Amino acid sequence: MRISGLSAVTGVSVPTIKYYLREGLLFEGVRTSPTQAEYGDDHVHRLRVIRALIDSGVSIAETRKVIRSLDDPPQSPHDLLGAAHAAVTPHFAEDLDIAAAELLVTRLGWQPGLCDPDVVAGVARALQSLERADFSVPDDVMTAYLHAVARIARAEIEGIPTESADAAVRYVVLGSVLVEPLILALRRVAEQVASAERFGVAGMSPGSAAAAGVAE
Amino acid sequence: MRISGLSAVTGVSVPTIKYYLREGLLFEGVRTSPTQAEYGDDHVHRLRVIRALIDSGVSIAETRKVIRSLDDPPQSPHDLLGAAHAAVTPHFAEDLDIAAAELLVTRLGWQPGLCDPDVVAGVARALQSLERADFSVPDDVMTAYLHAVARIARAEIEGIPTESADAAVRYVVLGSVLVEPLILALRRVAEQVASAERFGVAGMSPGSAAAAGVAE
Repeated sequence: MRISGLSAVTGVSVPTIKYYLREGLLFEGVRTSPTQAEYGDDHVHRLRVIRALIDSGVSIAETRKVIRSLDDPPQSPHDLLGAAHAAVTPHFAEDLDIAAAELLVTRLGWQPGLCDPDVVAGVARALQSLERADFSVPDDVMTAYLHAVARIARAEIEGIPTESADAAVRYVVLGSVLVEPLILALRRVAEQVASAERFGVAGMSPGSAAAAGVAE
Repeated sequence: MRISGLSAVTGVSVPTIKYYLREGLLFEGVRTSPTQAEYGDDHVHRLRVIRALIDSGVSIAETRKVIRSLDDPPQSPHDLLGAAHAAVTPHFAEDLDIAAAELLVTRLGWQPGLCDPDVVAGVARALQSLERADFSVPDDVMTAYLHAVARIARAEIEGIPTESADAAVRYVVLGSVLVEPLILALRRVAEQVASAERFGVAGMSPGSAAAAGVAE
């Protein structure tokens, strides 16, 4: 199909597609004349991935890095996950309390050398941000966070398909990055359900709201 | 203290403090002359909250709304949570499959009327983004997300202090918004631990990594 067809199928405007081509996010089509190129299903799929990343708040530069790990994946799924995380985790040049973050993630089974230092620095950055706001997470709540993310991660990693490298790459890269807004959105709903349960809400009595809630 | 002292205590530059004053994020100091004002501990605390929100990626406009709910809190903690969520949840004008999102969050105990429609729309938007990238979350993994956020939310809502309205406000508003980067950062570490456990990592054998992991 021509670029106009690609635009029609994906809903992405022609100028935006041209921008992605210039930025190296989308690979070139097959030239059929000096001014025209032919695009295929691969372009449609890739364009959807690019849109999804950008819609999720991933920057152009980060999207380019994620896309590169789709095109040129490392050998092992563990390295691939590291590459996907590195693409979307900024390097923090500031002074952070890495030791406190390491102590916390030890409760997740973390050991030195096990993961990208920037990922642990991300935890340190988040803790610093809370501390600066004079906000401390109660112990019970922190324990709930650790259990929850451990449970999420186990299910996610168990779900990685290994029969096809291509499927594994898509699953790891997109699952890790694109799912973040879903988890945060679900948490907000769950908070409102739990707060209705504890405090009541107009037209509902406390205790009735979470009757249908998921069992642990 | 003068504005220079406020800057020294908080590490926020004088021009930035003046910008926050103009934007209505920080309340004015007590005028001591036509060109000088006096600032106190309340300004220090507020400035830390503003910095923490902005550092967490919350926009100036959203920060202003969060700050307003700190200054003028609704009566019930449930309404307060709704106000905090509304401040940081965009209103999506686009066409979304709200019914699919509602069906999903029913598994969290959601019922019609229980929470801000924009919060459920946030779930619909996240699902749409995944669908557009041709990525589907496996059933087991989705169940893990639902259980995890339900567990998180229960611990968080149980932790809301009710003896002081001020403490409740800070806890709900900041806990809901500022903790998001922490949860995402912890998830990345947990994913790397689980992937090292499943696939091994240079210098460690599979199976040894998560030995110290949290028990469910």
